[in-house]
Parts: sequence; C-alpha cells; structure tokens
Amino acid sequence: MKLLRVGPAGAERPALLEEDGTLRDLSAVISDIDGAFLGDQAALAYVRAAAGARVLTELDGRGLRTGPPLARPGKIVCVGLNYRSHVREIGARMPMEPVLFLKAPDTVTGPEDTVLVPRGSTRTDWEAELAVVIGRTLRHARSEEEGLAAVAGYTVANDVSERAFQLERGGQWDKGKNCETFNPLGPWLVTADEVPDPQALRIRTWVNGRLMQDGSTADQIFPVGQLVAYISRFMTLYPGDVINTGTPAGVALGRPDPKPYLRAGDLVEIEIDGLGRQRQRLKDA
Amino acid sequence: MKLLRVGPAGAERPALLEEDGTLRDLSAVISDIDGAFLGDQAALAYVRAAAGARVLTELDGRGLRTGPPLARPGKIVCVGLNYRSHVREIGARMPMEPVLFLKAPDTVTGPEDTVLVPRGSTRTDWEAELAVVIGRTLRHARSEEEGLAAVAGYTVANDVSERAFQLERGGQWDKGKNCETFNPLGPWLVTADEVPDPQALRIRTWVNGRLMQDGSTADQIFPVGQLVAYISRFMTLYPGDVINTGTPAGVALGRPDPKPYLRAGDLVEIEIDGLGRQRQRLKDA
Repeated sequence: MKLLRVGPAGAERPALLEEDGTLRDLSAVISDIDGAFLGDQAALAYVRAAAGARVLTELDGRGLRTGPPLARPGKIVCVGLNYRSHVREIGARMPMEPVLFLKAPDTVTGPEDTVLVPRGSTRTDWEAELAVVIGRTLRHARSEEEGLAAVAGYTVANDVSERAFQLERGGQWDKGKNCETFNPLGPWLVTADEVPDPQALRIRTWVNGRLMQDGSTADQIFPVGQLVAYISRFMTLYPGDVINTGTPAGVALGRPDPKPYLRAGDLVEIEIDGLGRQRQRLKDA
Repeated sequence: MKLLRVGPAGAERPALLEEDGTLRDLSAVISDIDGAFLGDQAALAYVRAAAGARVLTELDGRGLRTGPPLARPGKIVCVGLNYRSHVREIGARMPMEPVLFLKAPDTVTGPEDTVLVPRGSTRTDWEAELAVVIGRTLRHARSEEEGLAAVAGYTVANDVSERAFQLERGGQWDKGKNCETFNPLGPWLVTADEVPDPQALRIRTWVNGRLMQDGSTADQIFPVGQLVAYISRFMTLYPGDVINTGTPAGVALGRPDPKPYLRAGDLVEIEIDGLGRQRQRLKDA
C-alpha cells in the first residue's frame, strides 16, 4: 500500500494511492497515519482489505497539497556517513559502526513544501535519503531479520543540512540539522511488503534540473536491517519513529569549489525508485 | 505557580501544588500541562486566578505517582559543557559558544520513576540540570531579554548519560544520551514569575546519600536568556520544548578512578532550590 496524507498543513487527512493513480480517502476508516495506526496490525489489515474491495470514498486529488506521510512522527534517528561513495567524496574514514544523531520531529514538512534557507546561512545542502518508518516497539534486536521485521514502511527524506552550522559552530552536528523545514518527508509511505529489497533502490537528486546525486541503496555500508537492529541496542524504537539512513555521494559539500550550496529560488527534486518524488523550492527564512 | 502531573504513567492528570502543600486537581480546568497550555496566556491567567480563589477540587496526594510535569514534550535541546566547574573537571576547553545536542522526547520519565542501566553499560552517569520549558514560539531572538521572555517555567532534569556509548562508539554523543528512561523530569514546573533569578539556584546531586554535585547556576558559562536566544538562531523553539542547560562538576566521569558509575540498586537524588527534588532507583534494563 501507498499511504499518504493530503490537505492543508496541520489538517491533512489520511489517504491511499492505488496503482492506477486513484487517490482514496481513508478518513472514515482510520483517524490518521501515525505510530498508533502503524503499530496496529488489525487496523493495517483492515485498510488493506478495504482498499482491495474499493469501499473507500474517492478523493479529488487535483490541487491537493501532500503533507508528510506520518502524523506526529516520533524521534528521527539519522545515520551519518552510511554510503561508501559519500564517505569517499568528503574524505572521511569508513565508520566501524553506524554514526547516529537526532533530528527534531518539528523539522518535518511535506514533500513539496518550501524549504527555508536559514538566516545567516551560506552553506545549505541537500541529502537524499531512504527513510525507514518503524511499526513495532523494538529493544535489543539480535539480528538483521529482527530489525527488518520492525519496519512498517519506507519513504523519502531530504536531510537538509547547513554545513557551517553543522561543522564549524562547536561540538555536535545538531545545530546544522534542525533548522525549520529541514526534513521534507514523503510523498508516500510504502508498506514494507511492497519493498522486497530495500538495498536495491536507485536514489537521485536534481537541483534546478541538473542531476546531482545518483546512487543506490546497494552502496549503504550498514543496510536497513542492521541499522534498525543496531539502533535498538542504544535506544528503544517505537511505532512512528523514523530513521534517515544516510545519503549517497553528490551533495554540495563533496563538490569542488565553488560548492553549489542552495539559495533562495533553487529547486530540489529527490526521487527513490517506487517511493515517489519530492520537489522543494528554496526561500529565505 | 507550581504545576505538576500526577497519576499512573500515561494517565497523569494536571495539578497545582500550593505553598502550604495542598495538591489541587486541575483536570476540570485544563486538559493537560503541555505546549498548547503553556502557549496560551489566557489559560495560564485563568488557572492562576482560579488557584487564588481556591475553586479547584482537592486531590488526595498520598501515594500518588508524580509524572513528568509536561505532557508531550517537544524537542529536548541539551547544552553540553555549560558550567565552568564541569569543563575543568573533565579537562575540556571552555566553549566559545554553546555546544548543543538533542535528546528524544521518549526518554522523559517522572522524577521518581526507575532509571534503567542499559544492557552492556559499564559507565552510566548522572547529570543534574536546570531544565527550561518554552512557552512561546521563538525565532532569531536578538537579545538575552527576548530569550528569557520565551521561558514558561523551570524544572529539574537528570540528563542521564552512558559515557562509553556517548564517547567511544563513533561520532556524535546521541548514542549515550537516548537510552530508555534517560531523562527524568520534574517534580514541578515552576512558572518563570516565581524564579526571579535563574542564575542563582543551588543544584545538588546525592548518590546513595553521598553529596556528589553541589553547584550553582551562577557558574553557567552561558546563562539561560543567552542560551534560549542563541538556540533560536539555529532552530525554532515552540511551546513545550525543553532545554537542559548543562550540569555542574561532580559527575562520575570527572572523578578519579575507579569512577563511581551507576549500578542497579543505586539511588540518585537531585535537587534545585525551589524546584523540588527527584529520586530515582537504578535497575538493570
């Protein structure tokens, strides 16, 4: 299933996107697409069955804004340096174990919402990422399989980053990762059963129409199941938590000077095979 | 006002603690103590007036569990290395600007709830901190005064930390800061009007009855107003967000070997003048 949320910011309703492009309203069936729903196997099965039987109201999709596919996201755990190509382009060392940091849930916006270049920013950068949405509480997973089994679905994230704030303002990375609008999410949450191999997805970014990132999740140093299991040994994962699994080569930071950091007016598009495409216009905060 | 939440975990009700120790039920007056309430000046004024007029139901406080004083906390921004005494004890350099990192809201527990020593942990540590609760959306504050004006109130936090996870497992600190139960909060939220000088508060920790931290917020390198203003230049602050403003000297990490890290059975007590006392028993996860 492709699950999404459509409508004005803060008033989205849950919906279902069928193979033929029909958008169906789920608001009579479930209250929202959130951790409680994703953690409820019966509710998921019900929506699946109802979708097949086409009993849902049809929704006129034209002109509707797409919100983030998840209401009230839990914590957002980000993985740094997880693609070999990206580690090489910035001249870092291959990590021995996943590098983790957090992003605040309030940075999440819809996949086509405006992204704000922070005041004082000169180095705002894109990062196309496969985002994993958790559907089951998980502690101390013992295997990659157990990690994968906790995944409710997948979506696209742009882990927007201000490199000067991240790397030159003292200490941890979080200052450059948590500016307002810095985590566009969506367009859809594709349930895990429809993503047979999360390590075989092409992931691309265009900036103003020019292809900047063109990688594959096959290049991930730590694949999804390992990541989820690893994280669960340090922190408890809950339904509705999100993991941004890292970005491939091709970010502005990894390019020759003058690096093409983002400015107001730029257009960023990010696509992952089968998970849809994001499109954000940049604007000054 | 001293605002708090009492009752079983997940089913706390809002309450008011009066000067004479009377605990009054606020659940007929407000739905909960959360960002929406703290951001609503009229609701705050109403509770203040109602409290004076003693129209609230009396609640039998005996045996009631105290929850965190804030339902659905927003992001938790933590400040590292913010007390001169703590910077010195661990041999770090004085920061030129605040060091920030995030803690996931799901780490928050009540002030007397059990704290879990993570599996595989050998270096679980305490950090007594003055926690600031935000009451007003704030972006790009220009002054310390503007920062202070966004503060709804103050409470106590234990920024529990696993030092090996934090410092020896690659990259960022977050792995050692986000284990389950790692952010006891409370007992009360004291509204800002009752804390005339947040830079003159004694802050103490006892472990198994022995005084381990005995500092004052006067020792903070960056005082509360400056911190709030500084953070608002990197990320937007919303009502219900929490800032853990750093810890004074006296953590296990800063002590001579063998460092007295926490083990199951230990008792941690943290008190800040006027903000009450926390008390946590440690248990193995």
